[in-house]
Amino acid sequence: MDEVRRSVTAAVLVIGDEILSGRTKDRNIGFIADYLFALGIDLCEARIVPDVEAEIVDAVNALRARYDYVFTTGGIGPTHDDITADSVAKAFGVELYEDQRIIAGLLERMRPQDLNEARRRMARVPRGATLVENPISKIPGFRLGNVIVMAGVPSIMQAMMDGVAPTLETGVRMNVATIEAGAPEGAYASGLGEIARNRRDLSIGSYPAFADGRFHNQIVIRGRDAQSVEAAKIEIEALLQEIRQRESSGRGSAG
Amino acid sequence: MDEVRRSVTAAVLVIGDEILSGRTKDRNIGFIADYLFALGIDLCEARIVPDVEAEIVDAVNALRARYDYVFTTGGIGPTHDDITADSVAKAFGVELYEDQRIIAGLLERMRPQDLNEARRRMARVPRGATLVENPISKIPGFRLGNVIVMAGVPSIMQAMMDGVAPTLETGVRMNVATIEAGAPEGAYASGLGEIARNRRDLSIGSYPAFADGRFHNQIVIRGRDAQSVEAAKIEIEALLQEIRQRESSGRGSAG
Repeated sequence: MDEVRRSVTAAVLVIGDEILSGRTKDRNIGFIADYLFALGIDLCEARIVPDVEAEIVDAVNALRARYDYVFTTGGIGPTHDDITADSVAKAFGVELYEDQRIIAGLLERMRPQDLNEARRRMARVPRGATLVENPISKIPGFRLGNVIVMAGVPSIMQAMMDGVAPTLETGVRMNVATIEAGAPEGAYASGLGEIARNRRDLSIGSYPAFADGRFHNQIVIRGRDAQSVEAAKIEIEALLQEIRQRESSGRGSAG
Repeated sequence: MDEVRRSVTAAVLVIGDEILSGRTKDRNIGFIADYLFALGIDLCEARIVPDVEAEIVDAVNALRARYDYVFTTGGIGPTHDDITADSVAKAFGVELYEDQRIIAGLLERMRPQDLNEARRRMARVPRGATLVENPISKIPGFRLGNVIVMAGVPSIMQAMMDGVAPTLETGVRMNVATIEAGAPEGAYASGLGEIARNRRDLSIGSYPAFADGRFHNQIVIRGRDAQSVEAAKIEIEALLQEIRQRESSGRGSAG
């Protein structure tokens, strides 16, 4: 196992009343989870908070102190409920300034008389931030310290992730093995737990899904060392084979 | 507005490595958001944490101190990574006991020799908890204080919500009005912000969606007083009509 490179950690902070009211179903956490996984960055926590400055400030400060990166989504438009830039600036104790590159970009898309106060709001960026390109609707996100501020609209957020990804420190990519258990969790839980206790370098999870009136369980092994993952897979498959034979010989039961 | 009944608040805590790794896409937060909205309970925060006891304990304690209810999903099965009951008991500083009603339920579904140590784990409940019925796979969740512990499998969690809902204190249901803006956010942001500042009893949000290369914006008004919501709707519609007329008279622009 490559012990030299440390793991890189991250959190997602989704900002928006509309997610908490149920009006909009979040799709950004799952996308960012997949994206960071592919980069070898461990997503360690996600939070959803309302459009309330104190809540955003507290969450940004809690998460940025704890993880290598914090990715926020939502609240960067021109309306009164878009307060992410203000809140992130406040969390860092810095001022907002009007970025003339963003103003110039806005003026490419509208006449000067249409650049009203609300639209200028989108050009406000905390001092010290770098811009995150937005190829879709052109208004950029920004990165301040380890906090990356992105749009809430999924297609725009996704394009921003592509822009910011090359600038991120990445970790060693996780190796993953998935096993269809073919047996009830209760039958293999003890044996699987023992294997997990003996392989502390791995994350071994058992995931039940429920369909057609019965469970379909998968066991997922994750780890940074491919050989260790493979060895655990062989061990777990042997355990499951033994259990399935026992179950099919008539001693088994559901659950 | 019915000022006598206070608002009732809640948080969701999703427990599971599989959500943070991207393997499973969470569907429980959105379901619970809709469900609580219908009950008049305000979902104020959601968190996703890994299968790590200290993380779960910290999140349970932070959220239960702050909100009227905390709904957790995930981590109540028989395998080694199912540590929600242990963690919630630890957060409250109480012991776990083996609930004989759950044991009896398990024995209805399996022979005594199949009731192994792992399956008995699912009968462990913190002292002082009440059980939350699970009509699907029969292993109940539980409620301890203001924390309601449910399964992670969506169909089972949903059935548990039906079981627990009649026991919850509910608030005054929100009234909601949705307006198709038909104009760019930047054009109505100033006027909308002024209306929002004058109507502090309401939550007024502007939600852009992006499809077919352009924005489709909705304005959502939420509040506990139906008359106030209706009055704001009329005011905002008048604002939008004025803006659309101005935009179509040739002075408007995109963005």
